[in-house]
Amino acid sequence: MYRVSGDVYSGNCFKVKLLLQQLGLSYEWAHIDILKKESRTPAFLTLNPKGKIPVLEIAAGTVLTESNAILHYLAEGSTFLPIDRLEHAQVLSWMFFEQYDHQPSVASARFIVRYLDRPPEHEQALQRKISDGYDALAIMEHHLQSRTFFVAERYSIADIALYAYTHVAHEGGFDLTRFVKIREWLARIRTQESYVDMDA
Amino acid sequence: MYRVSGDVYSGNCFKVKLLLQQLGLSYEWAHIDILKKESRTPAFLTLNPKGKIPVLEIAAGTVLTESNAILHYLAEGSTFLPIDRLEHAQVLSWMFFEQYDHQPSVASARFIVRYLDRPPEHEQALQRKISDGYDALAIMEHHLQSRTFFVAERYSIADIALYAYTHVAHEGGFDLTRFVKIREWLARIRTQESYVDMDA
Repeated sequence: MYRVSGDVYSGNCFKVKLLLQQLGLSYEWAHIDILKKESRTPAFLTLNPKGKIPVLEIAAGTVLTESNAILHYLAEGSTFLPIDRLEHAQVLSWMFFEQYDHQPSVASARFIVRYLDRPPEHEQALQRKISDGYDALAIMEHHLQSRTFFVAERYSIADIALYAYTHVAHEGGFDLTRFVKIREWLARIRTQESYVDMDA
Repeated sequence: MYRVSGDVYSGNCFKVKLLLQQLGLSYEWAHIDILKKESRTPAFLTLNPKGKIPVLEIAAGTVLTESNAILHYLAEGSTFLPIDRLEHAQVLSWMFFEQYDHQPSVASARFIVRYLDRPPEHEQALQRKISDGYDALAIMEHHLQSRTFFVAERYSIADIALYAYTHVAHEGGFDLTRFVKIREWLARIRTQESYVDMDA
C-alpha cells in the first residue's frame, strides 16, 4: 500500500491526496508538521534528504519526491495523463509553470499570511509575491478563455497541480473576482468524480 | 524542422540546444535577447503568452514552452528518457527540483552577477540565492556520492537539466571546489557523445 508523508493543507500534498482518491487507490497518510520541523528530523531526512513534503513510499526503500513527479507516477496509464506525445509534454509544461511561476508566488503568499501570520518584516516580500501571483493567474485566465481544462479538453494532472494552490489563493490575499474563467474551472474540478476537499 | 526561440547563454535554452545536438536533430535557432525585451514584444507574446524563453515550434502553430517539458517531448522514445514507470518519474523528480530549488538560486545568482552587473540593491537577494544555491548543490553532491548519473546510472534529460546551470555556477559566484562528485559528474557529461558547449 502507498504511504504518503505530508500535510493535507499543503497544496503540494493535497494534490497527491486528490489524485489517490480519484484513482481509487488505497494509501496510508503520515502527518508531517513542517512548522514543528518534523520534515527536518534525522529519520525524515533519511526518507527525503531534501527535507520536504510530500514523499510517496511505493515499497520498502522505494521513495519518490516532488509532488508533480508523484502525480506523474500515479497517473501513468490512467485517463489523468495523456498518451499522445505532445499532449503529455503540454501537461508537463503546465506542471513546470506551476512549480516555477505559480507556487513561489500564489502558494508562498498564502504561507506568509496563513502560517506565519503576516509579520511586518515579510510585508515587502508578500506584496511582490501577490504581484507575481496575479501575473501567473492572468496567464491561466488567458489560457482558459477558450478551454475547459488545461490540456486537450480533458481533466488531467495539469489541472490537479494548478488547482491545489489556486483554490485556496484567497487565503494568501488574492481576489479572484475578475478571473471568471478560473472560477468556472475551479467549480468544474469540484464536480469531477471522486473529488475530495482539502479538509475532507 | 524544429525552430527554437532562445539565447544559448541562458541555461534553460542551452538545455534544448544540447539535447537537439545529441539527438542529431535539425533545427533553426532564433536568437532572443531578453535584456532588450525581445521576449515581451506583441509578436513574441503571441508565440508564448508567458513572455519567456525557450520556445519550441514543432510545426506551424504548434508551440511548446517550459524548457524541461521541451526536453521531455524531444527525448521521448530515446535513451535520454527511461521507459520504466518509476525511473521516468525519478527523472521528472530531479527536473522539478531543478526548476523549483536549483534554478531560482543557482541560475538567478548568475543572472544578477553576469547580466545585471551585481548592483548594490540586489546584494541582499544575491546572498540569499547563493546560500540557497549551496543547499541545492549539497543535495546533488549527496545524491551523486553513490551514482554516476542522476537516475538509473544512465545519462538522461535529468542530467541535462541539472547540468545547464550547474556548469556555469561559478559565473554566479559559486565555488565548486568541495563538491567533488558534482565536478566529476560535470566532466562525465562533457565526454558524452555529441556534447556541445554553451558557446559552441
